[in-house]
Amino acid sequence: MFVKHGMNSGFSSLASSAVLRRQQFLIRSLKGYSVSDNIRMEAVKCLSGGASLEANAESVLRTITPSLDPTRHKGQAGKIAVIGGCREYTGAPYFAAISALKIGADLSHVFCTEGAATVIKSYSPELIVHPILEESYNISGVNDEGKRDISKKILSEFDKWMERFDCLVVGPGLGRDPFLLECVSKIMTRARQSNVPIVVDGDGLFLVTNSIELVSGYRLAVLTPNVNEYKRLVQKVLGCDVNDQNTHGELLSLSKQIGGVTILRKGKFDLISDGEKVQSVSIYGSPRRCGGQGDILSGSVAVFLSWARQCNSAAERESTISRTNPTVLGCIAGSALLRKAAALAFEHKKRSTLTTDIIEHLGQRYTLLS
Amino acid sequence: MFVKHGMNSGFSSLASSAVLRRQQFLIRSLKGYSVSDNIRMEAVKCLSGGASLEANAESVLRTITPSLDPTRHKGQAGKIAVIGGCREYTGAPYFAAISALKIGADLSHVFCTEGAATVIKSYSPELIVHPILEESYNISGVNDEGKRDISKKILSEFDKWMERFDCLVVGPGLGRDPFLLECVSKIMTRARQSNVPIVVDGDGLFLVTNSIELVSGYRLAVLTPNVNEYKRLVQKVLGCDVNDQNTHGELLSLSKQIGGVTILRKGKFDLISDGEKVQSVSIYGSPRRCGGQGDILSGSVAVFLSWARQCNSAAERESTISRTNPTVLGCIAGSALLRKAAALAFEHKKRSTLTTDIIEHLGQRYTLLS
Repeated sequence: MFVKHGMNSGFSSLASSAVLRRQQFLIRSLKGYSVSDNIRMEAVKCLSGGASLEANAESVLRTITPSLDPTRHKGQAGKIAVIGGCREYTGAPYFAAISALKIGADLSHVFCTEGAATVIKSYSPELIVHPILEESYNISGVNDEGKRDISKKILSEFDKWMERFDCLVVGPGLGRDPFLLECVSKIMTRARQSNVPIVVDGDGLFLVTNSIELVSGYRLAVLTPNVNEYKRLVQKVLGCDVNDQNTHGELLSLSKQIGGVTILRKGKFDLISDGEKVQSVSIYGSPRRCGGQGDILSGSVAVFLSWARQCNSAAERESTISRTNPTVLGCIAGSALLRKAAALAFEHKKRSTLTTDIIEHLGQRYTLLS
Repeated sequence: MFVKHGMNSGFSSLASSAVLRRQQFLIRSLKGYSVSDNIRMEAVKCLSGGASLEANAESVLRTITPSLDPTRHKGQAGKIAVIGGCREYTGAPYFAAISALKIGADLSHVFCTEGAATVIKSYSPELIVHPILEESYNISGVNDEGKRDISKKILSEFDKWMERFDCLVVGPGLGRDPFLLECVSKIMTRARQSNVPIVVDGDGLFLVTNSIELVSGYRLAVLTPNVNEYKRLVQKVLGCDVNDQNTHGELLSLSKQIGGVTILRKGKFDLISDGEKVQSVSIYGSPRRCGGQGDILSGSVAVFLSWARQCNSAAERESTISRTNPTVLGCIAGSALLRKAAALAFEHKKRSTLTTDIIEHLGQRYTLLS
């Protein structure tokens, strides 16, 4: 089913269904106010922060999604790579990589440490996992020259693959090990030289906030900060604290300051800007805040922005969409799909909803749009 | 349910069901043309490439499938071995090996590296996984004599098992490590000496394209190249580029040039030849191109060709079938089953269909035929 009127539309599309009626009852009983009250409240806040332009998310999703054409062959619907997975974290890169496949990408790779690889591989045979990254604790006895050799080897291993990827996701479960982050910086620089888009989330944002030159001026970079990551980014780049009275102006300034990088500011409603204008996605999702939803988002944005780039180069597409920055379109589509899937998962699992439950609904909700 | 009239029949068997009606609606809404339009389109293209003889896939499936006879004992329905699984890949050999079991083989083995074995074992307790292969990075400090010893040990480990297998699948997730490929070449030579059939896919095709003598003249070898693998094979063996105006003639020449090896050229419709004639399988599958479907096919062909060989030695079977090369019958049955399972999986999961979903439907669709 297609509805074409932004937030209210995305919302009325839900309103017309039994899903929402049950959900409203549920939210009322849980939180003491209705979903529509909640959304109105957001709208007011949003306006107070500046002129709000709700994205026509359903239309974007429909327009950039490639047709399921029997003449296409493996890889043409997208080849994504997630850089993440270390001694501590294995779930995050898995969530990002499997979400890309569930949305419709053909191939999804993960580049991580050897220990993480064994675990991530065991989560799913669908992923291609490369155990190439190294952490300091694992090479503590190695001298500087040895470390340089290891770093070179990691980069050459990655180089074998990079040209094949439509988009990189840097950060889910990356950790903060200095040696590992140094190698990932070089991987990002190499990807940028080859014009491969990069979605940066989680610890990737920690890296980028401290080395903003990695993405500065790169129009194919997307940052997806949550409240705290956004706060650190604003402090570092704009040299001030977050100003909730000027949400939109601040986001525009931040994006412009980093040279037109697209920023998806996650929150109760998501705000997206590439320095030109600010668009929001407020389709109702879920009140559940289990860890891992940001990883679904980063994997989703990677797929959608790849599709949006293909779509922009295809003449027959709607001109209004094709004139829009594909990184912005990817953010709108990713944000909308996650919110729809989260709403469906919450309807079934309520308070016990986990990230895996949301991933299971990515296709289900999405197919309603196809 | 049995239908006996080739492509249209294989197709009308679906046409009679609600499955197709739903699928046609889905494809129309996605692409603006119906499944039958699509198939007609293929038929025309197919003819333009040469005389097309659509295989009677349903009849082949029914004829070569052994009866589920309570007097038979473990192993008689097939013992398959997959040679593949390395540092990077573990999903592909798993898909091939588990597919063999899902179709009806009694035992399915995987021969891979130690690291891959741990992961593949974790995917399923149904498989027998042998951690015997080695990669260069793991024996970098070993001298040539030491490497020869390791190679001998690997071969002797494999020899203990080889005589038991009805078919080998060489290539899923094999990787391209020189030392590993050298050992696999020796395994293939040993299998050939013992007249064990070999299905070659993925990186196994990379090996064979560069060492065509490994399969040249071996009538029990099957190659299952995709678009790119076929291109490289034609360039290497025929010394020219792929000619889409002479699809059938080219495939016949290629097979003859390699001494009657059976080739299954994967595409929108699959073309199969052993140098005698070309048969096609065009039953509608799925527009989804997620990685791993080729692994299902290689495992399936291995089981079906083993059954076809048993069937050919059984007097009571239909003479028309028993006069056909069992490797060709195996390819026809494997291609048809994968397409039917993919169609069913797509009906349920749409764009989010993954290889694991298709494997879950192998039995379901297949049982409709028995």
